[in-house]
Amino acid sequence: MSDFSLGAAFIDGDIVPVTEAKISILDWGFLHSDATYDVVHVWNGKFFRLEDHLDRFFAGMARLRMSIPYERESLRSILSQCVKASGLRDAYVEMITTRGVPSPGSRDPRTCENRFYAFAIPFVWITPPESKLNLVISQQQRIPAASVDPTIKNYHWLDLVMGQFEAYDKGAETAVVVDAQGNLMEGPGFNIFAVKGSSITTPASGVLEGITRKTAIEIAIDKGYEVRQSPLSPELARCADEVFATSTAGGVMPITTIDGKNVGEGSIGPITSEIQRAYWALHEDPMYSTAIDF
Amino acid sequence: MSDFSLGAAFIDGDIVPVTEAKISILDWGFLHSDATYDVVHVWNGKFFRLEDHLDRFFAGMARLRMSIPYERESLRSILSQCVKASGLRDAYVEMITTRGVPSPGSRDPRTCENRFYAFAIPFVWITPPESKLNLVISQQQRIPAASVDPTIKNYHWLDLVMGQFEAYDKGAETAVVVDAQGNLMEGPGFNIFAVKGSSITTPASGVLEGITRKTAIEIAIDKGYEVRQSPLSPELARCADEVFATSTAGGVMPITTIDGKNVGEGSIGPITSEIQRAYWALHEDPMYSTAIDF
Repeated sequence: MSDFSLGAAFIDGDIVPVTEAKISILDWGFLHSDATYDVVHVWNGKFFRLEDHLDRFFAGMARLRMSIPYERESLRSILSQCVKASGLRDAYVEMITTRGVPSPGSRDPRTCENRFYAFAIPFVWITPPESKLNLVISQQQRIPAASVDPTIKNYHWLDLVMGQFEAYDKGAETAVVVDAQGNLMEGPGFNIFAVKGSSITTPASGVLEGITRKTAIEIAIDKGYEVRQSPLSPELARCADEVFATSTAGGVMPITTIDGKNVGEGSIGPITSEIQRAYWALHEDPMYSTAIDF
Repeated sequence: MSDFSLGAAFIDGDIVPVTEAKISILDWGFLHSDATYDVVHVWNGKFFRLEDHLDRFFAGMARLRMSIPYERESLRSILSQCVKASGLRDAYVEMITTRGVPSPGSRDPRTCENRFYAFAIPFVWITPPESKLNLVISQQQRIPAASVDPTIKNYHWLDLVMGQFEAYDKGAETAVVVDAQGNLMEGPGFNIFAVKGSSITTPASGVLEGITRKTAIEIAIDKGYEVRQSPLSPELARCADEVFATSTAGGVMPITTIDGKNVGEGSIGPITSEIQRAYWALHEDPMYSTAIDF
């Protein structure tokens, strides 16, 4: 009897329990991290901004010169099948295209048949909405855009992983890595925002163009705040009234200390709360959500 | 009946045909490229510089804060078992440690049990010894050391993959990526050397400290050449008498054109040939080789 309690995956055309889902050790998606992916979440039985995630996923594949035998409609169907098989009403749904396995003896990526995988697992929280994140500013530098195009969502995470360990060493939960000038870039799986007065700053470039980031920007503008997409210096972050992270894995999440010092009063700020509430409210808006036929 | 003709792998304590060797889709070695690896080759039934590869592999694991339940002697035994099961006298043998799978719902790498995998496949050539490589100098920048420590052998290859496609677009076989100043760094799986007179230049830092690179440097010094580990500008490469690549996947390989123009006379140079011959001769030296008990 298959156990789908930890999630379901689409592998080689079949839906299987995620615990049994495996990929070839020879797939260059693993051996060269030659892959792109996206993560869409399901909340209360509905995908959130699925079309935005699919847009980004197909754009990343094109830039990596990958193609899969599934059109957009087939992809929607596969992702829905994973969620339905898992039975999850709140899920973290990942779609992945890898380069695949080259011909024996060849190192030519053009000999590979690109591979598509997907899985749905229980919703993942970087931190639950009612809790607060302690952040450190790592000196680790984010892989620059001149090396790896950050608009292609990719698995090149060792900079973020090392930042994460630095955070644990310092008693914090997570870290943000920086650019060569020391400006804050992003953390493991999240974008970052700093609020000062009615102005909100988030890095413009060199970071993942997160869908939750985009949603938070749209909400902030709609609420009348000024949103600056410009370099976020450590000084600006440390003297901010509020700082928050955005991610598919948790939505809008307050950061209340940086390097052990309180941001503002060290409590969850009113603007962060306002954007967080609006973010979750959007999940009921048919413009943003796609119901799954369970 | 198991078919080991394409190689053998060590997975979960078992030796299996490499075509059946699979890893969990949830392993962060895949999902975050949170892994280190090494490749040692077997030539004529003997590992080449196995201890150097093991040194580097264990050092990389330590820097990534990974550990495996195998000591050095066990590792030697596992790698030998993969080669023996494959029956290959000339093999490309890869050992890999990944972060593993986190606890359900967690994103904390400390909850992962690190995983070890290995496989032996037929020897892989970037190009066979008698042939010549056409190179392009890509404008793609190698991921800098400030982001990912290149002395940890890692799978962050998207910069190299994009360089490779650029080479194909220009009718060449391979590409070298550059640093922020435009100096040549390395290619997909190889280090690069330029010869001018009796002086040989190879990049000092920001590149993988290849074992074949190290061997070529030792040979060159032994033969009385001056070896400069210093920035390798495009000008120096283009006006060089000879240029060559070094890799476990093929040894010492002549590069005879750069961006469509001949290097020197466009033929395999005498110093490249001398180092190439000495490199293969070392494979019979018991100081450098470890016989496998087939």
